[in-house]
Amino acid sequence: MMEMMSKPLCVNGARLWQSLMDLAAIGATPKGGVCRLALTDLDRQARDLFVHWAKEAGCTVRIDAIGNIFARRVGRNNELPPVMTGSHIDTQPTGGKFDGNYGVMAGLEVLRSLNDAGIETEMPMEVVVWTNEEGSRFVPVMMGSGVFVGAFTLPEVLAQQDAQGISVEQALSSSGYAGSPTVTPPVHAYFEAHIEQGPVLEANDCVIGVVQGALGQRWYNVVINGMESHAGPTPMELRRDALLAASELTLAINRFALDRLPHARGTVGAMDVFPNSRNVIPGRVTMTVDLRAPDDAMLLAMDTALRQTCASIAKARQLTIDLDQVVYFPPQPFTPELVEGIRSAAQAQGYSSMDVISGAGHDAVYLARVAPTAMVFVPCAGGISHNEIEDAEPAHLEAGCNVLLQGMLSSAGVAI
Amino acid sequence: MMEMMSKPLCVNGARLWQSLMDLAAIGATPKGGVCRLALTDLDRQARDLFVHWAKEAGCTVRIDAIGNIFARRVGRNNELPPVMTGSHIDTQPTGGKFDGNYGVMAGLEVLRSLNDAGIETEMPMEVVVWTNEEGSRFVPVMMGSGVFVGAFTLPEVLAQQDAQGISVEQALSSSGYAGSPTVTPPVHAYFEAHIEQGPVLEANDCVIGVVQGALGQRWYNVVINGMESHAGPTPMELRRDALLAASELTLAINRFALDRLPHARGTVGAMDVFPNSRNVIPGRVTMTVDLRAPDDAMLLAMDTALRQTCASIAKARQLTIDLDQVVYFPPQPFTPELVEGIRSAAQAQGYSSMDVISGAGHDAVYLARVAPTAMVFVPCAGGISHNEIEDAEPAHLEAGCNVLLQGMLSSAGVAI
Repeated sequence: MMEMMSKPLCVNGARLWQSLMDLAAIGATPKGGVCRLALTDLDRQARDLFVHWAKEAGCTVRIDAIGNIFARRVGRNNELPPVMTGSHIDTQPTGGKFDGNYGVMAGLEVLRSLNDAGIETEMPMEVVVWTNEEGSRFVPVMMGSGVFVGAFTLPEVLAQQDAQGISVEQALSSSGYAGSPTVTPPVHAYFEAHIEQGPVLEANDCVIGVVQGALGQRWYNVVINGMESHAGPTPMELRRDALLAASELTLAINRFALDRLPHARGTVGAMDVFPNSRNVIPGRVTMTVDLRAPDDAMLLAMDTALRQTCASIAKARQLTIDLDQVVYFPPQPFTPELVEGIRSAAQAQGYSSMDVISGAGHDAVYLARVAPTAMVFVPCAGGISHNEIEDAEPAHLEAGCNVLLQGMLSSAGVAI
Repeated sequence: MMEMMSKPLCVNGARLWQSLMDLAAIGATPKGGVCRLALTDLDRQARDLFVHWAKEAGCTVRIDAIGNIFARRVGRNNELPPVMTGSHIDTQPTGGKFDGNYGVMAGLEVLRSLNDAGIETEMPMEVVVWTNEEGSRFVPVMMGSGVFVGAFTLPEVLAQQDAQGISVEQALSSSGYAGSPTVTPPVHAYFEAHIEQGPVLEANDCVIGVVQGALGQRWYNVVINGMESHAGPTPMELRRDALLAASELTLAINRFALDRLPHARGTVGAMDVFPNSRNVIPGRVTMTVDLRAPDDAMLLAMDTALRQTCASIAKARQLTIDLDQVVYFPPQPFTPELVEGIRSAAQAQGYSSMDVISGAGHDAVYLARVAPTAMVFVPCAGGISHNEIEDAEPAHLEAGCNVLLQGMLSSAGVAI
């Protein structure tokens, strides 16, 4: 009852916004976005700025062997595992100011606000910058958090190379952010604030998305081989047109998701046609498939439908369709107690909120494998992300940061 | 009756084959094909060889302003318009030895055989090399024959540039094949021998295709603009996926032709997807459409169906589809008397033959606008053309050349 009567601690929204804008200046693009690929010199500059701010806020900073940066604000009992928050500051080539950056700056703002209020927590708190979440320069995506939770081994990711043949190991070393191998410490709880990257909050006029978990994903490469021939002299009934097969498959993949609303997704994002000449029947098509679903049974049913459809199209059109699964992320529910804490914090502060599910991958999805985890979503304009015009309202970003603060405080415990 | 009893005049198949092989050495590719783009130095070398052979066969040679080469064997009455045959010796970048080259070498072999037999014709005969039929380096395709018949003006094609910014005028001048502007002389009859470039003759085990005419063609560029967004967080029902629209359109275009068998054709040969990223819903697709039909009413009905389908897909999917017709060739029937002459010549020489329609464009299709015209098709292996593995049987090439000889002799009249 006492808590309800006292004015709740709030973050400084103007300071949060200014930090986001200052960070966005590093790698700023003419169209208002940010191009700051992982482990480039621009990424190093952004990391340096974060470390500077973290130390200014009284934090100690450690770097692990994959370059993840952990900024720690001590608590009363520093033997306890930390309450952690974070995200990433690398961007897509034509990325925005908020994706990832918001989660890191919101975490920093939580620590600054605790400093301002002179609040000591029972447990230590940490703000983390995870290395290479985007995967634009080096695959796999979510590299830093993936190594942290053991999804990948350190040697395998250090050996990955970018398009110029530069390895992760070389890039880490050049950036000065190659830390020492350490045993992953236990994490008491992990929170991550993020722009939604979709249109659902905006469409429902809600400020806070209470994230229930993340969709499972299966990604595939498809190669269709038919027969290239001249579009004029080749009768319709003698054709083995790879693009017709690709078109049927694309429409079928859309139906697999439409049959499983509201959460299933089915997308063909990339397609290349060979020889891609106006008057030549396509002999070969390569395409990608991205299937997502909230539970593994549904995801597997979609996989089965995909395989059956490939086989039946190949048979009917007398061509070959090779399907290769290249990525699998299991569906990842978040921790009910923490999710409930996010919902309560939003309600207590009078923010409109709704339950949502994350269609995209986030570092939090990996962290949920090793620690109780929750995420807070805030709207982004038009649901647009991975785009230089990505935008978000200062008031929404502040609201999400206030909810993050309350969630972290509940977990860390205020030292009396 | 006297003709039926005399042994018909025949060409020298071995000489024809050797000339084809000698010509194919100029621009030969490691995979057995030919790369000899229009008005390059290799094209000049091939032209020089043709001119050398034509003069060796007693011909006079003239060049017109677009570089078409006319090799004339005089007849008894040289005031009469010539009986003409020809084709092209430029190739696709990964072209074969026979496309075009066969028509020119077959014409040369006809003249050589008449020389061997000491036959004088009433009318003069001409073998023509038409400039830039393929259109691989300079558009439009069928440039030389198009200028000859007035489909294009000379100034407009001389100004066309290749990808390096070299104009047709400059390339003609460099090659030494820029002749003088002349008034197009009348043509008594035009014949063209060509590989089929399709699988119909082979599938029907026929040696001679008696070509009834050429399909009309409408070519289009299509631009579909939807909304690019993240494949994970964007619910299926809020998507405006340009690739789904393109897939529906591609399948519909196939149906337009399947509904009008056996001669209609509908093909999407080229498609480009933007941003073409695995986990981004395609916001934009560009694609080509190629519709062909044997008569203008059918071609127009297909055009109408295309426009209606674009409109209905755009409306249903809340995106825009822009359709731009870039090429129109009207259906072109050949001259019944000459076509009948080809059929009779094949029968008289005991070659299996069938009526076919040309799905592709040829110089003959333009010539038919100004002169009585017919074509002779011979099979090519697997129906494959515009490919380095393009192949044809020497016996089939010889048969087509014998039919061409008889057709030309019938038109030109043997001087008594």
